Order: sequence, then C-alpha cells, then structure tokens
Amino acid sequence: MKIAVLGTGTVGNTIGSKLIELGHEVMMGSRTSANEKATAFVDKHNNTHALAGTFAGAAALGEIIFNCTLGMEAVNILKSAGEQNLKNKILIDVTNALDFSMGMPPALSICNDNSLGEEIQKNFPQIKVVKTLNTMWCGIMVNPAMINNADHNVFMSGNDEAAKSEVKVLLKSFGWLEKNIMDLGDITTARGTEMLLPIWLRIFGSTKNGAFNFKIVS
Amino acid sequence: MKIAVLGTGTVGNTIGSKLIELGHEVMMGSRTSANEKATAFVDKHNNTHALAGTFAGAAALGEIIFNCTLGMEAVNILKSAGEQNLKNKILIDVTNALDFSMGMPPALSICNDNSLGEEIQKNFPQIKVVKTLNTMWCGIMVNPAMINNADHNVFMSGNDEAAKSEVKVLLKSFGWLEKNIMDLGDITTARGTEMLLPIWLRIFGSTKNGAFNFKIVS
Repeated sequence: MKIAVLGTGTVGNTIGSKLIELGHEVMMGSRTSANEKATAFVDKHNNTHALAGTFAGAAALGEIIFNCTLGMEAVNILKSAGEQNLKNKILIDVTNALDFSMGMPPALSICNDNSLGEEIQKNFPQIKVVKTLNTMWCGIMVNPAMINNADHNVFMSGNDEAAKSEVKVLLKSFGWLEKNIMDLGDITTARGTEMLLPIWLRIFGSTKNGAFNFKIVS
Repeated sequence: MKIAVLGTGTVGNTIGSKLIELGHEVMMGSRTSANEKATAFVDKHNNTHALAGTFAGAAALGEIIFNCTLGMEAVNILKSAGEQNLKNKILIDVTNALDFSMGMPPALSICNDNSLGEEIQKNFPQIKVVKTLNTMWCGIMVNPAMINNADHNVFMSGNDEAAKSEVKVLLKSFGWLEKNIMDLGDITTARGTEMLLPIWLRIFGSTKNGAFNFKIVS
C-alpha cells in the first residue's frame, strides 16, 4: 500500500520504518522536499519504497495518511498538504496537542470540550479521521510485543466504521492483538484518549521509563 | 481509628461501609445531621461504630477525612465543615470535578492547568490532601480483588510524604497490593489522575461495565 507519513520526528520515523519493513511504499512528508531528516530516512532504508517529499506530495501519493506532526501545528500542516490530496482518505491521527508554553510537563492546547481529533475532522469533513496509537511511546506503537507479551490496549476513535476496520488491519500488522484494540466510538471519544496524556507524562516522570502502556482489566 | 466520610452518595456509603467492616469508627457527614441517607447508613450497620452528623461534626470527630462529596461542591462543603475541624488532618480526596452542564458524558470543571486536588490544597493549606482512588468505580476502590486478582493500579498524589504513607496503609487494608500503589508525586500530579476520567467514562460507555481498572504494564 502507498502510505504518507506526515512529520519527520521520532514518531514519523518509527512508524515510517515499520511500514517499510511491512512492505509498504512510504513517503515521509515535510515542509520542504529536501528536509534533512526525511532524506536521512530515505538513506537509512536504502529501499525504493522509502521516499521523501513535501506534505502535499506525500498526501497526494498516500492511500492512507499518518499524521505524525506536532499536535499544535497539525491543522495548519494538513491545510498546507492540500484538501484535494487528502479528500476521502483515511487519516490516522497519532498526535497530541501538547502545549509546552506553561512549563513541564506540558499541558494540552485543546481538551475537555474538544479534542485535536475532532478539530481535524471539523476542519476536513471529507477526510476519515481515525484517532489511535496516541496514548503511548512510539516504540510500543509499532512493537506492542515489546512489553507484557503484547497484552495491553490501543484505543480507536472515528466516525467511519469502514475506516476503523481498515486501521484495525494495519494495527494487527504492527502486532496488536484483536482483543486489545478497543473501539471507543465516534471521533468525540478522542477527548478521552487525548486526556490520557497528562497521566502518561506523570507516570513517565515517576518511573523514568516510557516503555509502558495501559491495560484495561475487568 | 475515627474516620469522617463526607458525602452520603454511593461512594461515601461504599467507603464508609468498608471502614466499618475493618473496625473503624465512621461518621458520615452531610448538610444536616438528620440526612436520610446518613441515617440509613447508621441503621444498616446497626453498630455503635457507625454514626451520622453534619459535615462539621464528622470532620471534628475524624482523625482522617474522606472527601466523597460531589467534586464541583467539594471546596464549599469543606468550608462548611470548618477549617479548625480539618486542620492538620489527612484529607483523602476521591472526588472528580464532573460537570454535567454540557451533556453526557460529563466534562471536567477544572483540568489541564489545575485540578480539584490542587484547588482543595490551595484553599486549605493546613490540610494534608492525598488524592487517590478517584480513577475507578467505588466497588473496586474497597475491593480491588474483585477483578484480575487485585492486580491493577491505584494512584496517589500529595505533598506530604508521611500522609501518603499513612494512606498507603489504609489502601492496603482495602486489599491493594503494595506494588500496585503508584505514588505519582506532589498534588499537582492529580491533574493526571483527574484527567483519566474522560477515558474512564468512554470505556464505560463502550463496554457498559464499570467494574474495570487500569493496569500499567511495562
């Protein structure tokens, strides 16, 4: 499958690399096609399936788009990617609207009566936004078996059932167990998963170990 | 030990009953000493250790105070309990500032750059506030063994180390395993645990089962 990864940070790199490993064609998108980190990503893989381009170029190529940008910039970046390049596609939004302006640990720039997932969906009604994977360190996102025999949870929020089914297939290819993929409902449920970040940050602050996740037990 | 339970709702009743079962003397506090639910609590236990009184009366008696009031009313209720009755005591705050005014599921009236736990601590600097147990259904609070062999987490936030140690003893008497009591740090970390509520509510909305909890796996 042709997949766009918007964002050249650790999250984009980790997800992009996993997708290449799984045999997908991946274009990492950034502000300029000559972005240093995107070029390094291409060089690292030394594989015709690893490409670099602008946000618009990546979005145009991708059948599915991973949003791995900085949360607070995500809406503007998606605008620069061009609505026509995103239209009718699935956007997997793994971002959090972390706001570092008030000190550490960061707060959220949107929460409680809205979420970044909803904000993206409102700005781009013709994209199928699926919020997922945003509740953990990126190493766990693409390799859940790293901890507790892959027995812990990933959440999904989105308005389009078919899109969520397709994302589920992708999550399973990352190693997620079917029973641990928890569909919380429509995109408004992203308020729940995005507001998990404050406790994530404080558990990380207390244990100094980011390789953990939440498992729902009942 | 003499313990005040402020609030006559399901949470106060559940915690009060567990404390009676453990041999503590419990006064359930409410606006009026003749509150119907508090009287029913006393009648149900038919035990000289179960008492009912005003918020002030309960706070005066208790060596430890459980705050099981409605989160949005908690600061005002504590004011009515009287600062002199609360002074230097441990206040175990299990509340969440659930705001139902914007529809269901409720939002939080305080979050992100503040928390109810901090707000109480700021209003009553001479109380030792320990935020805990607020991330789960009350049935699990006092009987963690009800699910997953008691193997799941309870969090603690508070500025006073000795107070947290004392609360830990109480949590262990409820059945919490030492390894699962996670001290996140000072009272500002209550922002993390209180902001867990939105996902709690949405997991509950999705599964229709409140008898679940979060287990941190790494």
